[in-house]
Amino acid sequence: MIVAMQDHSTDEQIQNVIERMVELGFNVHRTTGAVQTILAGVGTPAHFEVTEFQVLPGVHQAYRISSQYKLAGRGFRPEGTRVTFPNGVVVGGEEIVIMAGPCSVESRDQIRLSAQQVATAGAQFLRGGAFKPRSSPYSFQGMGVEGLKIMREAADEFGLLVITEVMEISQIEPMLEYIDCFQVGARNMQNFNLLRELGHVRKPVLLKRGIAATIEEVLLSAEYILSGGNYELMLCERGIRTFETYTRNTMDISAIPVLKKLTHLPVLGDPSHGVGKRDLVPPMALAAVAAGADGLLMEMHPNPDKAMSDGAQSLFPEQLVQLVEKLRRLAPIVDRTIAPAVSQIHA
Amino acid sequence: MIVAMQDHSTDEQIQNVIERMVELGFNVHRTTGAVQTILAGVGTPAHFEVTEFQVLPGVHQAYRISSQYKLAGRGFRPEGTRVTFPNGVVVGGEEIVIMAGPCSVESRDQIRLSAQQVATAGAQFLRGGAFKPRSSPYSFQGMGVEGLKIMREAADEFGLLVITEVMEISQIEPMLEYIDCFQVGARNMQNFNLLRELGHVRKPVLLKRGIAATIEEVLLSAEYILSGGNYELMLCERGIRTFETYTRNTMDISAIPVLKKLTHLPVLGDPSHGVGKRDLVPPMALAAVAAGADGLLMEMHPNPDKAMSDGAQSLFPEQLVQLVEKLRRLAPIVDRTIAPAVSQIHA
Amino acid sequence: MIVAMQDHSTDEQIQNVIERMVELGFNVHRTTGAVQTILAGVGTPAHFEVTEFQVLPGVHQAYRISSQYKLAGRGFRPEGTRVTFPNGVVVGGEEIVIMAGPCSVESRDQIRLSAQQVATAGAQFLRGGAFKPRSSPYSFQGMGVEGLKIMREAADEFGLLVITEVMEISQIEPMLEYIDCFQVGARNMQNFNLLRELGHVRKPVLLKRGIAATIEEVLLSAEYILSGGNYELMLCERGIRTFETYTRNTMDISAIPVLKKLTHLPVLGDPSHGVGKRDLVPPMALAAVAAGADGLLMEMHPNPDKAMSDGAQSLFPEQLVQLVEKLRRLAPIVDRTIAPAVSQIHA
Amino acid sequence: MIVAMQDHSTDEQIQNVIERMVELGFNVHRTTGAVQTILAGVGTPAHFEVTEFQVLPGVHQAYRISSQYKLAGRGFRPEGTRVTFPNGVVVGGEEIVIMAGPCSVESRDQIRLSAQQVATAGAQFLRGGAFKPRSSPYSFQGMGVEGLKIMREAADEFGLLVITEVMEISQIEPMLEYIDCFQVGARNMQNFNLLRELGHVRKPVLLKRGIAATIEEVLLSAEYILSGGNYELMLCERGIRTFETYTRNTMDISAIPVLKKLTHLPVLGDPSHGVGKRDLVPPMALAAVAAGADGLLMEMHPNPDKAMSDGAQSLFPEQLVQLVEKLRRLAPIVDRTIAPAVSQIHA
Repeated sequence: MIVAMQDHSTDEQIQNVIERMVELGFNVHRTTGAVQTILAGVGTPAHFEVTEFQVLPGVHQAYRISSQYKLAGRGFRPEGTRVTFPNGVVVGGEEIVIMAGPCSVESRDQIRLSAQQVATAGAQFLRGGAFKPRSSPYSFQGMGVEGLKIMREAADEFGLLVITEVMEISQIEPMLEYIDCFQVGARNMQNFNLLRELGHVRKPVLLKRGIAATIEEVLLSAEYILSGGNYELMLCERGIRTFETYTRNTMDISAIPVLKKLTHLPVLGDPSHGVGKRDLVPPMALAAVAAGADGLLMEMHPNPDKAMSDGAQSLFPEQLVQLVEKLRRLAPIVDRTIAPAVSQIHA
Repeated sequence: MIVAMQDHSTDEQIQNVIERMVELGFNVHRTTGAVQTILAGVGTPAHFEVTEFQVLPGVHQAYRISSQYKLAGRGFRPEGTRVTFPNGVVVGGEEIVIMAGPCSVESRDQIRLSAQQVATAGAQFLRGGAFKPRSSPYSFQGMGVEGLKIMREAADEFGLLVITEVMEISQIEPMLEYIDCFQVGARNMQNFNLLRELGHVRKPVLLKRGIAATIEEVLLSAEYILSGGNYELMLCERGIRTFETYTRNTMDISAIPVLKKLTHLPVLGDPSHGVGKRDLVPPMALAAVAAGADGLLMEMHPNPDKAMSDGAQSLFPEQLVQLVEKLRRLAPIVDRTIAPAVSQIHA
Repeated sequence: MIVAMQDHSTDEQIQNVIERMVELGFNVHRTTGAVQTILAGVGTPAHFEVTEFQVLPGVHQAYRISSQYKLAGRGFRPEGTRVTFPNGVVVGGEEIVIMAGPCSVESRDQIRLSAQQVATAGAQFLRGGAFKPRSSPYSFQGMGVEGLKIMREAADEFGLLVITEVMEISQIEPMLEYIDCFQVGARNMQNFNLLRELGHVRKPVLLKRGIAATIEEVLLSAEYILSGGNYELMLCERGIRTFETYTRNTMDISAIPVLKKLTHLPVLGDPSHGVGKRDLVPPMALAAVAAGADGLLMEMHPNPDKAMSDGAQSLFPEQLVQLVEKLRRLAPIVDRTIAPAVSQIHA
Repeated sequence: MIVAMQDHSTDEQIQNVIERMVELGFNVHRTTGAVQTILAGVGTPAHFEVTEFQVLPGVHQAYRISSQYKLAGRGFRPEGTRVTFPNGVVVGGEEIVIMAGPCSVESRDQIRLSAQQVATAGAQFLRGGAFKPRSSPYSFQGMGVEGLKIMREAADEFGLLVITEVMEISQIEPMLEYIDCFQVGARNMQNFNLLRELGHVRKPVLLKRGIAATIEEVLLSAEYILSGGNYELMLCERGIRTFETYTRNTMDISAIPVLKKLTHLPVLGDPSHGVGKRDLVPPMALAAVAAGADGLLMEMHPNPDKAMSDGAQSLFPEQLVQLVEKLRRLAPIVDRTIAPAVSQIHA
């Protein structure tokens, strides 16, 4: 920590700050200028709040200079994390993965058809929500465990992996049997109890950035899961809330290269939630991969106009096919490839 | 719902939109202008998503014209909701209530002293966190149920009510015995499973606005609790996230009169989280009451410099005393009074 | 400036940073920890960009520890600036001033009536726009110099001062003859050429915060005017742009006490632009004064429903009268008074 | 315009709204539901403010359904605008253009070297600031007209076009002789007097989005220039201000496909200001083109570490070379090509 004192702060004020730094476990180095004194705290106390120093008398500003995340930092695993799935699909390697499917599980037929279309287009994961967190209590709330079974069945038929959102601790156990990857939604990015439990699970997790979360906060939330012992973790940019209302959110494409630099964890992009309108999904998917994403999470529905939720941002099946074609041509430019379609893996 | 078609949209496009509106249960009135057609959907279908119409071919824009919240709307109870507590304290009436106490329950002594100071200053509620959701996994995480017991004991000694944060469904049951009011924190404002459970509880709830939540979203979250049957609900503005970093958040004081207009629920202000710095809390507390708040929720610590969390934004005990004095003088200007100190209630 | 090196940065990297700091004119003090090195730069080079250090190899983070504004800082004039106007009105002293009037100058009758109503309500300044910057080229663009004459005439009749917005350098000269105070609008807060010119003028300036401006940027813009030699400067909070759309902007009431702490300049509040809806103006005006504002700038129109611009946020004349009454009762609570009505000054 | 009345609004309220609509020139169609009345205003009055209707008694919400921009809308020129420059370079066609150069013109040598490097890398435009709007009055403020001459000379030697920022009306005239394209910076996007003057100029203009400007506001500002008769206009996304502070701004890549849909004007991206850090510029440049940008505006400096401004976000010359190579491979994937290097045009 560094504390910059105000110009002409008193000796008493300086001594008070030094004492409190020492109390916390810092070794303090003092730099005395003509008008301003700077105190550098060296060492790593277990926990302290830099804001407390900011309000001490005579303090101009205080800065935390070591990051609060250790396990999530790039330095912990400079070579990058690769998350390997049962069927051999790897996220975080040279191959870019595609996760696609409807917002909600609505019926067996809808999911079977979705899985077929998603696999045909070249995706490796089937996404779909069984438990739906909706902002209005009067909207469709999901099929629950029955939806999980339907997803597993359909995914298995077409060789896909299953990723679905977990919304609370009690859902973890029943989900374990049916899914390949837990997804933590934007609204739960700081549900720390849930994160801690997911740290104890032996199943990969995809953690989405909250709509008001800074990049640093994403990494602190990742730290919760990592510190529980679960290193099979992936991050996902899916749009932040800004003053612009034309799009549902503002997808922060720059967060992708920033995260790739700061952490060893794979980083995906979710253009569907990022923009909220179907016709903007393909350009944003291309942008995400051009900026370095390790994969994409997208909504596709066999019949978006009849979808029970998020229809407006769901791709038509043929749009997904065309998009994956373009992605296949784009990947080499950023020294990547698109992961082979599961049909090819299984062949 | 209203759908404004693009200039020169085709008849086929217009028919398609009309059909889908009728399908959902709307009666459609068509206004045909020289260049633009407008479709007004009358009626109240159970659920529909306006965004789906925004992406239909030929549509310029689509608007939901009925609000999605019914029970939370001012029209549902024009006279306003009053939440009455066991000791006779009423929130939402003429009297403005004060809730104060430390961020975290740290020890029996700290809480007893806090309760005494809070009661002396003139507050009616003791606040304090037993379960602490912290953004870093390495920060202090709270005392749990033991903390609740300590709070109850101290509050009872000084005639105070207990308000504390509930972070997940499993905490509701153990809390019921010790507390007078559940507080839902900003991070859980859209934890819809939790909200739904709190709708089934027979205990008042204070719901805080999320840092990225619009006023409409606050009311939709309130609707979750109300639709479960729990009408003992209060809202709380505690700052939103903006580009300004000097303050912890930007406290949206205007949300107070806006909410008072849109809903019948009492509205409180939390200047401690709103600004994050102790010396800004008194002016913002005055501002909140001047703007129409029904009460204040504030952090006070017997020794803020030694607080285990949020010390920088916790008032010194004497600051609270002085502030309540000023509030007492301010209240009549907005046709209110400050609720009597509990010592007086009990006398 | 302080530069915190990355853990295990190399000696070469550290030397490179030190050399560049010395080049700029810093004396560098080095603190070497077990894993991390910290470099404190003491001294005040004429200009440097901290971002350049943030991208140097081996640098973890770099902080500017001295503020970039000198003349605007509270330390430059701890007792606070008082701006005195020809008729004896002082802004920044014990008295709180009221500036009110229509958005646009529309006609001689409208302005004369406005001036009379504004003076009767107890204001000291007549506001009104002669040159109108409108976001659409098809909206009403103002009456220009003719409007200034009309304002002067009406203000003189009722003993009021004239404040109006200056939008570009060429308007300064013609305005000088008619007005008492230049207003720099939010959109021009970083029109540095205009600010520089206003620094050379001998007439007070009210500088509004831009809708995307941080508090620090407001003070840097103030520095432009002050560094030109014009110390008759006042600041004004008028709302920032956030994700909330119910209000026109989000009025950052906390900016008022923050600015009062950081600078010696008077700070006013403009609730009309802050919220954009008439019925929210009185509560926000009260909140601004409760939080420490030195004055208020508000829109009032003799007939808001017929206003050529900003009618929705203009007070009815009787609303202004009632508001000033309340402000008169509120002021003593924050150890202030409302400035006497000009009729009384002149009596 | 559509006005949705509140549930159970009175006949008197409805009549009042209808009268005011008719007064403005609307034909009003009334839809009366069981509880709610909807008023559709057909026609296009010269100017009206929808907010005025929002505050009328009994009104639930009012919507403007025709866009305020006419000339800027895609419908005005469905085939898209192509801006042609003297040397045959076209912006808005199949070819993607590159504009690059230093932030500030610092010296003849620096600009000559920059021009050579920029041309070699494959750019068509030399950018550079002669008049510098800096947020601190103590920062370097630019070389002025002398800088323009230097740019012209260097550009001519290497066959480049010159683009530079115009900050106020008085600069237009002296610039005309030296430059090929005016650039309006983010801070001046709503300097409407300047925009109006640029509407009367016969020289192309590149208009940057303000950091707090919605997409609709960008188009309204474009309308100012177009309505003056200057159709040689290009838009540029360069980052908006959000709560995220790791990057200088948040580059809203989605604004590129949105603008391409809403307007016929060419849309460029400026990743340098969008992110503010050199190493993030290449991925964001690729993302912008992948999302549909018609060109890129980027900062490059022969020696960024010695740059007098914006060094941290300026590319090294070799980075620009490598980036253009990648862009050349990327362009065909979005059915475009990178414009040939000027050396080839001239060959």
